[in-house]
Amino acid sequence: MKKSIAIDMDGVIADIEPHLIEWYKKETGVALNQDMIKGLGEEEAFSDKEALHKILNTESFFRTAPVMDGAIETVKSLMKEYEIFIVSAAMEFPLSLFEKRAWLQEHFPFISWKNIIFCGDKSIIDTDFMIDDYCKNLDFCKGKPLMFTAYHNIAIDHHERINHWNEVPSLLENHIAKTEKVL
Amino acid sequence: MKKSIAIDMDGVIADIEPHLIEWYKKETGVALNQDMIKGLGEEEAFSDKEALHKILNTESFFRTAPVMDGAIETVKSLMKEYEIFIVSAAMEFPLSLFEKRAWLQEHFPFISWKNIIFCGDKSIIDTDFMIDDYCKNLDFCKGKPLMFTAYHNIAIDHHERINHWNEVPSLLENHIAKTEKVL
Repeated sequence: MKKSIAIDMDGVIADIEPHLIEWYKKETGVALNQDMIKGLGEEEAFSDKEALHKILNTESFFRTAPVMDGAIETVKSLMKEYEIFIVSAAMEFPLSLFEKRAWLQEHFPFISWKNIIFCGDKSIIDTDFMIDDYCKNLDFCKGKPLMFTAYHNIAIDHHERINHWNEVPSLLENHIAKTEKVL
Repeated sequence: MKKSIAIDMDGVIADIEPHLIEWYKKETGVALNQDMIKGLGEEEAFSDKEALHKILNTESFFRTAPVMDGAIETVKSLMKEYEIFIVSAAMEFPLSLFEKRAWLQEHFPFISWKNIIFCGDKSIIDTDFMIDDYCKNLDFCKGKPLMFTAYHNIAIDHHERINHWNEVPSLLENHIAKTEKVL
C-alpha cells in the first residue's frame, strides 16, 4: 500500500504570505515585508486584527492566492509513489470553502475530490506524513510531522523542516529508508 | 480523554431520503416512496441519472434538507461524554460545501467549526466510532463502525445497525462496557 501524505494549503502549496502582505497594505496602508515579520505570530505580524479579519473573510482572497514555488511539479510527481491528501483548515472561514475547492481545481486538477479534506481540527487525520506550517496541527498528528517553513514558525525547532518543495522527495525517501532499517 | 465519534450528514443527521424523493418527483414526475426503494442502490432507486445529477448540483437542495428525527437532541447530549466530529463527503458537490456549513450552523450551532470535516474518501479519518449509512465509509474506518439504517443499506448485515437516534447512547455505552471487560 502506498504511504499517505496530508498536505496543508495555506503557507504550503498556496503562497499565502506575500499575498496577505499585499492585501494588508491595500487595507491598512502598512507596508510589511517578509523580513520584518519573521518569527512573529500571525496576530503580531498583522497587528490590525480588524483588517486581518476583514481580509480573511473577503471574497476572492483565497481564490487568488499564488501557488507555492515548486508545489505543482513536486506534488504531481509524488503522486506516483504516495497517496496524497490535501488537508486544509478551511472551516473557520465558510466563504473560503468554495474558493479553495475552485483554487485546487485550477492549480491541482490532477488531485481527485476524493483526496481533498476541509476541516477545523486536524487531530483526527491519520496519514503516514503530514506537511504543515503550524504546530497546532503537526504536534498532534498521527504520522511523521514535517514543518514547511513560514515566517511565523522560524523559531520553532522541534519538527523536521522543509524550506522548499524540491527538498521533499529525498526527505521522504530518507525517512522511509531509515524506518525500514529500524524494522 | 473523551472517545471520539465521526458522524455523517446525509442519511444520518440530515433526512435526505424523503427530501430526495420530493425533489425527484418535482424534476421527473416519478412518485417514489420509501417502501418502493428499499434495498436499492441510489442509482437504481433514482434511475434517471441526469435528473439525479441535476438535483444534487442544484442550489438549495442540501441547504433545505430536513433534520433526522432525534438527531439534534441526541448529538447535543452525546457531546457531554464524547468528542463529536461531523464528517461529510461534501467534496463531490462543490456547491454543497457552503450550504452544508450553513445547514450545520442553523441546526447544530453547538458544534464548533473545529469539529466539522468535509472530505471525499473517509479512510484517513481516525475516530473511536463512525456512524454512517454507507459501507464505502464504514468498511474502511479505523474505529467501530455503526450503520445508520437507510433505504439503500437494508440488505447489508455485516455492521451493527442504528435504526433511530434514540438507540445511540445505550448502544455506545454497551460497546464501551464490552470493550473494557475484554481489556
